[in-house]
Amino acid sequence: MIINGNTEIIPHIGFPTHAFKAPMIYNPWFEKCGANALVVPMGCKPEDFPVFLPSVFKLSNIRGALITMPHKITTIGLLDEISPTALIAGSCNAVRRAADGKLQGDMFDGEGFVRGVLRKGCVLKGTRVLVVGCGGVGSAIAASLAAAGVASISLFDPYAPSQDGLASRLQTHYPALQVTVGSNDPVGHDLVVNATPMGMNPGDAMPMDVDRIAPTTFVGEVVMKSEMTAFLLAAKDRGCRYQIGTDMLFEQIPAYLEYFGLPSTSADELRAVARLQY
Amino acid sequence: MIINGNTEIIPHIGFPTHAFKAPMIYNPWFEKCGANALVVPMGCKPEDFPVFLPSVFKLSNIRGALITMPHKITTIGLLDEISPTALIAGSCNAVRRAADGKLQGDMFDGEGFVRGVLRKGCVLKGTRVLVVGCGGVGSAIAASLAAAGVASISLFDPYAPSQDGLASRLQTHYPALQVTVGSNDPVGHDLVVNATPMGMNPGDAMPMDVDRIAPTTFVGEVVMKSEMTAFLLAAKDRGCRYQIGTDMLFEQIPAYLEYFGLPSTSADELRAVARLQY
Repeated sequence: MIINGNTEIIPHIGFPTHAFKAPMIYNPWFEKCGANALVVPMGCKPEDFPVFLPSVFKLSNIRGALITMPHKITTIGLLDEISPTALIAGSCNAVRRAADGKLQGDMFDGEGFVRGVLRKGCVLKGTRVLVVGCGGVGSAIAASLAAAGVASISLFDPYAPSQDGLASRLQTHYPALQVTVGSNDPVGHDLVVNATPMGMNPGDAMPMDVDRIAPTTFVGEVVMKSEMTAFLLAAKDRGCRYQIGTDMLFEQIPAYLEYFGLPSTSADELRAVARLQY
Repeated sequence: MIINGNTEIIPHIGFPTHAFKAPMIYNPWFEKCGANALVVPMGCKPEDFPVFLPSVFKLSNIRGALITMPHKITTIGLLDEISPTALIAGSCNAVRRAADGKLQGDMFDGEGFVRGVLRKGCVLKGTRVLVVGCGGVGSAIAASLAAAGVASISLFDPYAPSQDGLASRLQTHYPALQVTVGSNDPVGHDLVVNATPMGMNPGDAMPMDVDRIAPTTFVGEVVMKSEMTAFLLAAKDRGCRYQIGTDMLFEQIPAYLEYFGLPSTSADELRAVARLQY
């Protein structure tokens, strides 16, 4: 990769930066496909972000930005146009500047989840799904599942305001969608998702009663700490098809690339050229 | 070069960016010496710079910044501490953040010139020098020659305010230095420098009367358009030792690297690993 005066930069903005993975995924792909673009880690503290974000978008050679913790929520208030998915998610992880100079934001965590399960042959249109965990990632997944045309979404979060707020935002943007709250019972769902941190630590409880998951149900996971979490292992034992946490990560990258107008490819190729191990 | 969450960035800030050379010089060196640092081109328009510069220096992983046209003069007014050389030059091309958070600026164009001629065996301490052209680069060279201990500096610029202003700034910071203005006659000088753009275009006049340059005089050039300008060719014909324009560029990079606390090396090695042709 030769960085020169024509290189377009993609700031990857978060704090701290040490665990950033995106530079090792995007940049090897740009090198391979010949795109003169560069993901650049930028450690920005919360108190500096409201000035930094609009300022960095004044640069003549910025192609877009990847936004990560702790800025995904704050970003919403700093942009001119927010996609419905990002509004429902309540957070942005992608920002670009439109031709008219307006800053636009979108959220691809859920899109990555959806693209992954669709590629695995899971049908979403008209189906019934359960999302357990209504924080940032659960909200993003629910928003993208709604956009993908599911018929009903059941939401569960022990913190009622998260659960109820997400239900309300979904209903506002998708009036025809059937939204229910208050149960994490997987029975009767075509797709169930663990969008909680449960599975990060040994001994964590299961996010739902695995014994009640039907073998025909597709099971999704967001925890990336290990490829096969206890939850996924149990689902696999029951014969379920499933999606691992990092699939969401890699499957959303083509969505980002398309959003930024850069050459795109499959999640599989991105995973193959990435300079990291999963 | 693997860019990751521990990479420290060095914004190269100017506008436009297309002719930037620094990324192709520094980054191959960082790769070779194993420094996890990255020069990143950033195209910043003049009206955005006063907000952008302090904002980008809030990043947790910024190591320093290279400042280029059109921001070298403006930078002076945006920092907390300016080196005497930069004050005399009236411009900054290097900015770093001190441990206490203060932004410090320096100017290495002249330092590059001086390091180059010293490395070629030219003695400066106690000598008489002529600088023709008192714009940005001439001022920077004069400031660094003064810092290197020359006894007298003759300045010439057809635009009197540039010439007189530089003389005044030199005299303020170096009261013992003998400064004269108003003549571009090379007679009686140990070192003469063309710090004008003359030589950029075919048919340009000579910056001084070459026939009056003694063969013992060392001749310096700042024009980089061709390695041997007409001025240098004429000086060479007279038997003078000389320094080409791009030497100033490469010789200043070790000064930058030291200023930023990064592994340094010789200008020759930097030139050898650079991914550009000169």
